[in-house]
Amino acid sequence: MPDTVQTNQQFRLASRPVGLPTDANWQLSDEALAPLEDGQVRVKVLYLSLDPAMRGWMNEGKSYIRPVAIGEVMRAGAVGVVAESRSPRFTVGEHVSGGFGVQRYWTGAADDKANPLVKIDPALAPLPAWLNVLGMPGMTAYFGLTDIGQPKAGETVLVSAAAGAVGATVGQVAKHLGCRVVGIAGGADKCRFVVEELGFDACIDYKEGAIGPGLKQHCPNGVDVYFDNVGGEILDAVLTRINMKARIVICGAISQYNNTTPVRGPANYLSLLVNRARMEGMVVFDYAQRYPEGVAKLAQWLREGSFKHREHVVEGLENFPSALLMLFEGKNFGKLVLKIAEA
Amino acid sequence: MPDTVQTNQQFRLASRPVGLPTDANWQLSDEALAPLEDGQVRVKVLYLSLDPAMRGWMNEGKSYIRPVAIGEVMRAGAVGVVAESRSPRFTVGEHVSGGFGVQRYWTGAADDKANPLVKIDPALAPLPAWLNVLGMPGMTAYFGLTDIGQPKAGETVLVSAAAGAVGATVGQVAKHLGCRVVGIAGGADKCRFVVEELGFDACIDYKEGAIGPGLKQHCPNGVDVYFDNVGGEILDAVLTRINMKARIVICGAISQYNNTTPVRGPANYLSLLVNRARMEGMVVFDYAQRYPEGVAKLAQWLREGSFKHREHVVEGLENFPSALLMLFEGKNFGKLVLKIAEA
Repeated sequence: MPDTVQTNQQFRLASRPVGLPTDANWQLSDEALAPLEDGQVRVKVLYLSLDPAMRGWMNEGKSYIRPVAIGEVMRAGAVGVVAESRSPRFTVGEHVSGGFGVQRYWTGAADDKANPLVKIDPALAPLPAWLNVLGMPGMTAYFGLTDIGQPKAGETVLVSAAAGAVGATVGQVAKHLGCRVVGIAGGADKCRFVVEELGFDACIDYKEGAIGPGLKQHCPNGVDVYFDNVGGEILDAVLTRINMKARIVICGAISQYNNTTPVRGPANYLSLLVNRARMEGMVVFDYAQRYPEGVAKLAQWLREGSFKHREHVVEGLENFPSALLMLFEGKNFGKLVLKIAEA
Repeated sequence: MPDTVQTNQQFRLASRPVGLPTDANWQLSDEALAPLEDGQVRVKVLYLSLDPAMRGWMNEGKSYIRPVAIGEVMRAGAVGVVAESRSPRFTVGEHVSGGFGVQRYWTGAADDKANPLVKIDPALAPLPAWLNVLGMPGMTAYFGLTDIGQPKAGETVLVSAAAGAVGATVGQVAKHLGCRVVGIAGGADKCRFVVEELGFDACIDYKEGAIGPGLKQHCPNGVDVYFDNVGGEILDAVLTRINMKARIVICGAISQYNNTTPVRGPANYLSLLVNRARMEGMVVFDYAQRYPEGVAKLAQWLREGSFKHREHVVEGLENFPSALLMLFEGKNFGKLVLKIAEA
């Protein structure tokens, strides 16, 4: 039986930000829900994923994905529950994940390959975890590390934003592969979490000053794989400590996303030459065909109890603009999700 | 029959340069030649290779090869002729290549694996070509392009310093592999040479201004492989034109070697992420075991007449300091070699 709501509520992009997004960049709109067409599904959004990459989607210009248009509902990954269905593939009450956007209800074709609707099993892990270790961050970490980083047992893997959704998964996957794992995170609480809860061998607190001494201390044999989520001066410092044939996975550069000055390029990039090393970018969508493989592996470790995940839940669609800013101020502790409605 | 010379003449590193090397960084020394010991060979140096990498060897600090020490004979690749031999492996009059240094005579063990003496065949190509297409620059180009760049037929290969020793070989190898090949060089003469003599499809003159429009015009399908010898703003401009899964070979950064300010990092490096592209360093010495394969392939193309090489010969050991500077001013046209003595 369908919900009987008649209106939706949405955050639309009102203008493109310069530097950090402000309230003026958003427009909150209300819209009547049209009746479903044949083949369509309506999803009640339960949890939204808030990600650093969203900042890039707000910019104009070519990137790995088209920008969100002015006036368009802001793009976001989410989990929800099927509220109405005119597709034989989906039944009301089933849980699904997809690119539902920053809104209360998503309506679309059940078989849209460009925005696939994926059934998820809440018995395997709580719903927010499907936006974390079993969602895009988990897939990013799993395939970025194994396919691009290619760590071997005994090697040293370093990961920045280690307490974040991607970093936490990268480090734990690397531990399962037999590596020495060192994180970089901001603040004593996050570093303690990374070592004591996630099981990293060490964590460097970048808020305590330059990370050089920490790298020297905790990566005594150099760095074989660096999984970079932050860019900027941390990337530059790591470049001075990489080993021969090191692999640097460029996954993101959160330190640079809100720059109003030009991006800071890695001045020490010639260390790649000296060390015959590689720096390579990755985008998770390239691995869409292999997500089931990643989910199966991570779910196995979750079931075995040898894998942790942590979500930072903020409540209420209306808090979307301020919650998004937490990412860039390092204020979230764990994968940031916005709770939109009760399951 | 040994030559009867009694003295050697050498350029030694007197001090480390700041910015461009000056005369004050060099000390010209004369030294009596000691009699050969058993197992040693004495080589009369005929041609010295002058290379941008020499600038890096003059700096203190860890690199892919130890720095030249203060007071030490400056390191240089060279070809010469065996003048005396107390090794059964080498006969007076044979031609050899090796790391003979900036001096008139080299004396050393015939079987020193750290500085191997390699017989060369002057019938295959003139002696200076053994410092060019059949020497280190040729090996750098051949293995850097094929092993790290991995171009496929039909792809676009872009190479900077295209009229230089490495660039000229990179482009011609890429043409033999069926690629569209575009060069970047300084000045109309070099660009004409690159297109008309070497057979590149196009060449962009960086001295005419920003290379962006040239890249757009001559790489209409983007850049699949960029072989970078220069770094700096050219690397940054190319990063905006790379294709998905592009490979950037970091072979050198001549624009940055004499910097007294910090190296300019590639501000557009996040294009690697957007395009799932790779930037990887290479050092030719890693391919020492495979040099015979590279020499055989390039010699075959030379014999077939489908491969060009050009050397810029400066005469006289005494001109070493000024000749070296030509590299950084873009004044040489072709592989720069210093002729020390008649063959």
